[in-house]
Amino acid sequence: MRLLLISNSTNAGEAYLGWPRPHIQSFMQGTGVKDILFIPYAGVGLTTEGDQASFDRYEVRVQAVFSELGLNIRSIHHEPDPVGAVREAAAIAVGGGNTFYLVKRLQELGIMEAIRERVLQGAHYMGWSAGSNVACPSLRTTNDMPIVEPPSFHCMGLIPFQINPHYLDANPEGHGGETRQQRIEEFLIANREMKVAGLREATFLQLEGNRLSLGGSRPMRLFQFGQEPRELMPGDDLQFLMG
Amino acid sequence: MRLLLISNSTNAGEAYLGWPRPHIQSFMQGTGVKDILFIPYAGVGLTTEGDQASFDRYEVRVQAVFSELGLNIRSIHHEPDPVGAVREAAAIAVGGGNTFYLVKRLQELGIMEAIRERVLQGAHYMGWSAGSNVACPSLRTTNDMPIVEPPSFHCMGLIPFQINPHYLDANPEGHGGETRQQRIEEFLIANREMKVAGLREATFLQLEGNRLSLGGSRPMRLFQFGQEPRELMPGDDLQFLMG
Repeated sequence: MRLLLISNSTNAGEAYLGWPRPHIQSFMQGTGVKDILFIPYAGVGLTTEGDQASFDRYEVRVQAVFSELGLNIRSIHHEPDPVGAVREAAAIAVGGGNTFYLVKRLQELGIMEAIRERVLQGAHYMGWSAGSNVACPSLRTTNDMPIVEPPSFHCMGLIPFQINPHYLDANPEGHGGETRQQRIEEFLIANREMKVAGLREATFLQLEGNRLSLGGSRPMRLFQFGQEPRELMPGDDLQFLMG
Repeated sequence: MRLLLISNSTNAGEAYLGWPRPHIQSFMQGTGVKDILFIPYAGVGLTTEGDQASFDRYEVRVQAVFSELGLNIRSIHHEPDPVGAVREAAAIAVGGGNTFYLVKRLQELGIMEAIRERVLQGAHYMGWSAGSNVACPSLRTTNDMPIVEPPSFHCMGLIPFQINPHYLDANPEGHGGETRQQRIEEFLIANREMKVAGLREATFLQLEGNRLSLGGSRPMRLFQFGQEPRELMPGDDLQFLMG
C-alpha cells in the first residue's frame, strides 16, 4: 500500500499547494502513472453557484498545480459511474475542504469502500487535510465544522491511527476555548485505545508497503491515552503506529 | 419560554463562570426558583477517572459558583430516572464542554426531547457554549471536535436559528486553516435557509416569551446566505431571528 497523507494544502501566504509539490512529485515518480482520479467532494464554497460549479473550480485549481508536475487529474464528479471510476483508477487524490461534506458524499456514493479496496489493491493514494483524515479509521479528529450530517463517522481505515491535520500548538489570542491538545486529549478519554498524530502544517506522513515515515520540516506530536505527548522527528521510527 | 444562551463560561484569565454570574443571577431573580437541574454531559476530561468522576467534579465546580448566587444545582447524572427528573425540573442548566459528547448522551437517554418539552411548558433554561448549541435546531455550528458519534445531529430547536458560540474574528498566527467566518459561510452554502448568530465571548442571547435580546459587552455577527454579515448591538431588534 502507498499513501501520501499531507497535513495542509497551503501554508499561510504561500501559493496553493505550494509546499507539497516536490513531495507529490517524488511520490508519483517512478510509478509510471500520470493520470490521477481526483475527489473534489470536500470542496464547499469555492463558488456559491452550487456543488457542480464548485467542484469544477476545484478541479481547475488542482489541475493547474499538477500540470506543472507532469500529472493529469480527472475529477470524479464528471463520472456517471463513480464506483467504476474508482475501480479503474491507478492513483487517487482526495482534496481538502470540509471533512463532513466529503464523508457524506463518499458514503452516499459508495466510494468510501471502493477507494479503500482499490488502494489495498495497489492504487497510489494521496490526500491533504480532509483527504488525509478519511484515510483514518474515522473522522473523529477533524477540526472541521459539522455543516452536514454524514450517514456515519466511519472512514477508510487505511491506517490504524487518527491524524489531526493542521495541528497547531497555540490558541488565538483572547480565546477562552480549548487548545488543540485539550481537544485531542478529550478524544482520547472517549477513545482510549486510539493513537492520534498531530500533523503540523508543512508536514506529511508517507506509507510505503508497511513502512511509515514522517516528512516535512517540523516534528509531529503524538498523543496516547495516559501518556505524555511525544514529539517525533522525520527519520524517527514510526512502525509502532502501524501495529 | 425563557432561555439564557451564553457564549462561553469563562473569559481567558478570569474565574470559572466569572463574567456570566450577574446575568445568571438576574435571569433567575424573581422566578422563585432556587433549585436547578444541571446537565453535565458535555464535560469530558475533567478527570481521566471515568465519566461519573468527571461529572461529579463538574457538578462541584458549578455548584461553587451557583452557591454564591443563592442557587442550588442537582446534577442529572445521580438520577436513576433522568427523564423523570427533567419532567419535574423548574429550571435546567446545561454546561459547556464537547457538544458531540453532550448530544450523544442527551439523545441516548431520551432527555433531548424531554428537556425541549419541559422548557416549552415553562421551565427556565440556561446553557453555556455546548449548552447553548443544543438549544438550536442542530449541532451543525459547533466548533468542537467530533470525538464521539451521536445517533443524529438533531437538537432541541428551542430557537429557529443556529448559534456559533465562542465566535472569533481572528485566526491563530501562521495558521492556514479556515477562519470562523469562512466555516460559517460554508455551513450556509450547505444550509441556505438557516441563519447563524456568531456569539462572541462575553455575550449571550436571552429569550423572554418570544422576545429575543443580545446581552454582554460586544456586538454579535449575523450570517445569512447571500448577504454580507451584519453586526448587531445589544438593544438592536432581533425579532426577525425568531420568525
